[in-house]
Amino acid sequence: MKIAVLGTGSWGSALAKVLAENAHTVQLWGRNTEVVASINQHHKNEQYLGDTILPHSIKATTNLEHALEGVDLILIVVPTIAIRSISQAVAVYLKKNPDHQPILVHATKGLELDTHLRVSEIIESEISSELYQSLVVLSGPSHAEEVARRDITTITAASHDLEASGIVQKAFMNDYFRVYTNEDVIGVELGAALKNIIAIVAGISAELGYGDNAKAGLITRGLAEITRLGVALGADPLTFSGLSGVGDLIVTCTSPHSRNWQAGKLLAQGYSMDEVNEKIKMVVEGFTTTKAAYELAQKQGVEMPITEALYRLLYEESDIRSGLSGLMSRVGKQEASLEQHLGSQEAHEISH
Amino acid sequence: MKIAVLGTGSWGSALAKVLAENAHTVQLWGRNTEVVASINQHHKNEQYLGDTILPHSIKATTNLEHALEGVDLILIVVPTIAIRSISQAVAVYLKKNPDHQPILVHATKGLELDTHLRVSEIIESEISSELYQSLVVLSGPSHAEEVARRDITTITAASHDLEASGIVQKAFMNDYFRVYTNEDVIGVELGAALKNIIAIVAGISAELGYGDNAKAGLITRGLAEITRLGVALGADPLTFSGLSGVGDLIVTCTSPHSRNWQAGKLLAQGYSMDEVNEKIKMVVEGFTTTKAAYELAQKQGVEMPITEALYRLLYEESDIRSGLSGLMSRVGKQEASLEQHLGSQEAHEISH
Repeated sequence: MKIAVLGTGSWGSALAKVLAENAHTVQLWGRNTEVVASINQHHKNEQYLGDTILPHSIKATTNLEHALEGVDLILIVVPTIAIRSISQAVAVYLKKNPDHQPILVHATKGLELDTHLRVSEIIESEISSELYQSLVVLSGPSHAEEVARRDITTITAASHDLEASGIVQKAFMNDYFRVYTNEDVIGVELGAALKNIIAIVAGISAELGYGDNAKAGLITRGLAEITRLGVALGADPLTFSGLSGVGDLIVTCTSPHSRNWQAGKLLAQGYSMDEVNEKIKMVVEGFTTTKAAYELAQKQGVEMPITEALYRLLYEESDIRSGLSGLMSRVGKQEASLEQHLGSQEAHEISH
Repeated sequence: MKIAVLGTGSWGSALAKVLAENAHTVQLWGRNTEVVASINQHHKNEQYLGDTILPHSIKATTNLEHALEGVDLILIVVPTIAIRSISQAVAVYLKKNPDHQPILVHATKGLELDTHLRVSEIIESEISSELYQSLVVLSGPSHAEEVARRDITTITAASHDLEASGIVQKAFMNDYFRVYTNEDVIGVELGAALKNIIAIVAGISAELGYGDNAKAGLITRGLAEITRLGVALGADPLTFSGLSGVGDLIVTCTSPHSRNWQAGKLLAQGYSMDEVNEKIKMVVEGFTTTKAAYELAQKQGVEMPITEALYRLLYEESDIRSGLSGLMSRVGKQEASLEQHLGSQEAHEISH
């Protein structure tokens, strides 16, 4: 297949590597001229993927039309904040080539500010459905650095169109990159976006010296509140027990590779959101996702105590130490609404 | 309350500390005369809990009758292999004191070899139900070392008798030890026992150099197969999404405090099961649980590929490196039966 990968961050580059190793023709697009030149000349993306050697067959370009020319599949891997503008640009190209009909795939984990749209919804709002075959979401527990060094990774390809997700599955699948299909697009996208909130809190918690018992409690409670919001928004609750739910949540909350977790550590050291973004040099999706999720939860009347506590830390400047200490003790408070989705599990707490 | 804690391992000692800090009268029983003497004289259990100072009010004894005298609650925290004999001894005492009627609690995570019984079933088979008020299971993500230093810990008290689990909840609850009640005894005990299997495999995987993506895939797949067996044996599937399920699974698979995880690392270094047991100096419950769970899965016709692979490594001496490599690629193979309990999630995998 001929495939365009839009985005030269760590994840875009790692996925381009997987596709090129699977013998597809990969046209990689990015805005950063230095990164594009380095990929073409040195077959490296040092800024985002260190010393990893990329397959020589990958051609990078800053010209979007060139990248999209004649491709069967367009993989979008840019930060959520850039999804709308890249979708508009792709739409312009596809309108000029209405017979083209590629499959669209995205691998971005976030929610749009103000609109609260999922990434696939932003894309669908900008690209008319007659212009492409189908839209597929790629998501799961997958640090780019590990995929780049061919560590075994399991991931989900979600779409309402099983034929399209099957094609995406075949395109990416190899010995170390194992792809499963799933029809619950809402659940897969919400799991991917919301886990970053819990990861930031896990980073704060680690920096403040809380231990593994607290982390496990936090992840379990986080999974419960993600599931509650997901179900309210139409997701299948079982999706959150799978790779793109608890799997991604675990890897993001327990691995130092996670930039959202690192962001939490930096917040706890006293840096502001802007300073953290600058230090990490990549977009910390969890910051905007926290705001979007908090507003969604308010609108839906869903209790999300961890998300709410982080929202108050980030956007209402409550003190971080007392905020987290309050949060950690709330983790152990009664949550009646838990019963809705967790049955009898963990309810009936008494106040001491 | 007056409470007997039977077992002077790390978990028994840490729970005795929680109870004594909550102003209960704690009578701690153990077989090891040195440990008992050290607790009484130096208020320490150095072998299992390092430098932690235990409350001076805790009285330790090697005399079971003295420990049980007049208590309202008996907490059993011995390895699974010793549950039957301690239950017989407790039964002898209770028969002599039929009006006593204490609540029984256990905090042991395992399955009995050959009989495949859960810990509460072993206790019930040895102590006639007229001799005690009710049986409660205490379980959740809780390294003893962290509880001993008062890190925040969330845990489940499970019983068919809500009054009894409420009494246990009140007895243990404090600012750092948060207790939730649950009625699904089967699910809580199976989650607690079976997670040790996945923890051993996670330790092997870490030692062999597999990364965080693989670990997240392994934990997610592990959760799925634990849930499958649990449901076949009568558990509520939602229990496995809670503290005593995924919570305990995470803490055991991602923390170096876990002795089952450590056991996996040692196996991967080439040590035999006997050598590992000797090095760790505590019972590695996961070894026997793997055998019991494998046999239960066979009997129930439930697919448990991770458990089966570990069983073959431990009991049929298949080569550990090729065994794990086969397992890690199986983690990415199609598992039709997954659909049963995970809905559309992660099914439809193709062979590449």
